[in-house]
Amino acid sequence: MTQAVIINEVGARDGLQNQHARIDVDAKLELITAFVAAGLPAIEATSFVSPKAVPQMADADVLCSRLPASGKVQYSALTPNLRGLERARAAGMREIAVVLSATDTMNLRNINMDLAASTAVCSETIRMAKEYGMRGKAYVAVAFECPYEGQVPAPRVLELCEAMITAGADEIVIADTIGAANPAQVKTLVGECVRRYGAQRVSAHFHDTRGFALANVWASLEAGVRKFDTSIGGLGGCPFAPGAAGNVATEDVVLFVEQCGLTTGVDIVKLRLAVKIAERLVGQALGGRTSRWLRSRD
Amino acid sequence: MTQAVIINEVGARDGLQNQHARIDVDAKLELITAFVAAGLPAIEATSFVSPKAVPQMADADVLCSRLPASGKVQYSALTPNLRGLERARAAGMREIAVVLSATDTMNLRNINMDLAASTAVCSETIRMAKEYGMRGKAYVAVAFECPYEGQVPAPRVLELCEAMITAGADEIVIADTIGAANPAQVKTLVGECVRRYGAQRVSAHFHDTRGFALANVWASLEAGVRKFDTSIGGLGGCPFAPGAAGNVATEDVVLFVEQCGLTTGVDIVKLRLAVKIAERLVGQALGGRTSRWLRSRD
Repeated sequence: MTQAVIINEVGARDGLQNQHARIDVDAKLELITAFVAAGLPAIEATSFVSPKAVPQMADADVLCSRLPASGKVQYSALTPNLRGLERARAAGMREIAVVLSATDTMNLRNINMDLAASTAVCSETIRMAKEYGMRGKAYVAVAFECPYEGQVPAPRVLELCEAMITAGADEIVIADTIGAANPAQVKTLVGECVRRYGAQRVSAHFHDTRGFALANVWASLEAGVRKFDTSIGGLGGCPFAPGAAGNVATEDVVLFVEQCGLTTGVDIVKLRLAVKIAERLVGQALGGRTSRWLRSRD
Repeated sequence: MTQAVIINEVGARDGLQNQHARIDVDAKLELITAFVAAGLPAIEATSFVSPKAVPQMADADVLCSRLPASGKVQYSALTPNLRGLERARAAGMREIAVVLSATDTMNLRNINMDLAASTAVCSETIRMAKEYGMRGKAYVAVAFECPYEGQVPAPRVLELCEAMITAGADEIVIADTIGAANPAQVKTLVGECVRRYGAQRVSAHFHDTRGFALANVWASLEAGVRKFDTSIGGLGGCPFAPGAAGNVATEDVVLFVEQCGLTTGVDIVKLRLAVKIAERLVGQALGGRTSRWLRSRD
């Protein structure tokens, strides 16, 4: 089992998308440049959604055309459908992600489609991305609990994973969108995904609503997962999910993973500079569970 | 493997001992009564240490004589030596605990003895407690990292565990006194203790300094451990350990363990009343990682 863990920084997209204040493209690029400087190997840059639905992401095309060049970083963008995919392709993106919520209600509230329709659109988008020679990831969101429907049956999540793999997804991201998962569930569900598709094709996305995120990261590591979504300073959440709190903080996962004896290649000091930039952009204090301890070592 | 987890509430001792303001015995009993009402099955009530060293615990004898009677609760008290043991016995305690720090420097700074001397005193105290027909627990403190000596070698900790078991200890408590452990270390060290002595004789004590405590609880559960020290609202820490932050909060562990499908028998609503009492006693806001989420459900 490899000791290298890939951190996929989602702060510039998942973190910023629900900020009320508009953040301009230069500011976003400043943040992304700080991510690159900190050695983050994967960065979710933006989302090619309707500017009406998510005004904060209206600059996706411009942003992608100006991303800092680096041979070491894999940039990605969310593309909810073929229209988004075409925009991402035109902007030069080499990796896209679709988001498939695991319940009817979440899909209806989020994108006004039922689960079957959403599955079809995600499959189609992944298939076309692969035809274009892009890397395609598929999120299965609310994979443990849905804010509207409650507990989500694992067999349904596994069916959706299978549909995405069949469509050609290079990677499945199991997402605990509202931070309701516990490590017993993670062990079962993420473990089964790893058994079916191999650790290389499975990553995990946790929120820290109940303070369980690092325990879920550990359960995922034990299951063989070596890639995690994280957000700088714990920025963000899900704008459509009531009660959702922030993503697990990048600095928490980097510190945790490194102390567990694995490696991320991320510079924790430079990461803290990125936290400060993010704080300035959103005008509020940020920071994960490790902040106080990290500050005590200054 | 049993699904029942025993929570040992240490807030009345470990939580209160480093509070500057003196808390009177009636107030302590109010807190302990709230613990009993919440269904906590094990309560560390006090410490029979020198009143000069820890003035907050000077009322240990009176407190123990007035503990609320309950057939369901196992009370315990720390006894650093034979003198403390005699006091605990006279006060009617049926369970005592010794604390053996795993490094020379921690022992010297804490109780002005080196590791060998401290081991001898702890062994003698445990042996005598067993002669008196009491239950005897042995903490191995700073079992992962010492604030003075850094990383603590696992083989030394295991030697100290062996010494305590040889002396007659009914239970070994592996204590991450400064909150520096990660679940990879916990898996190795706690796992080895369980292999040697059985899960029934091993418990764990975590601090949440870096936000890793619940991940460490999960690693311990996976290793078979079914008993944890916790402190109401995360109250307390180690007065002698620089940089140490609070104990893992009782409500965090109860919520976490229950959501993982295990049972504690603790009433989370009544537990929150105990948090409020503790907040009043110490004059500051308390609460673990789950506080915000718990409040959002009121």
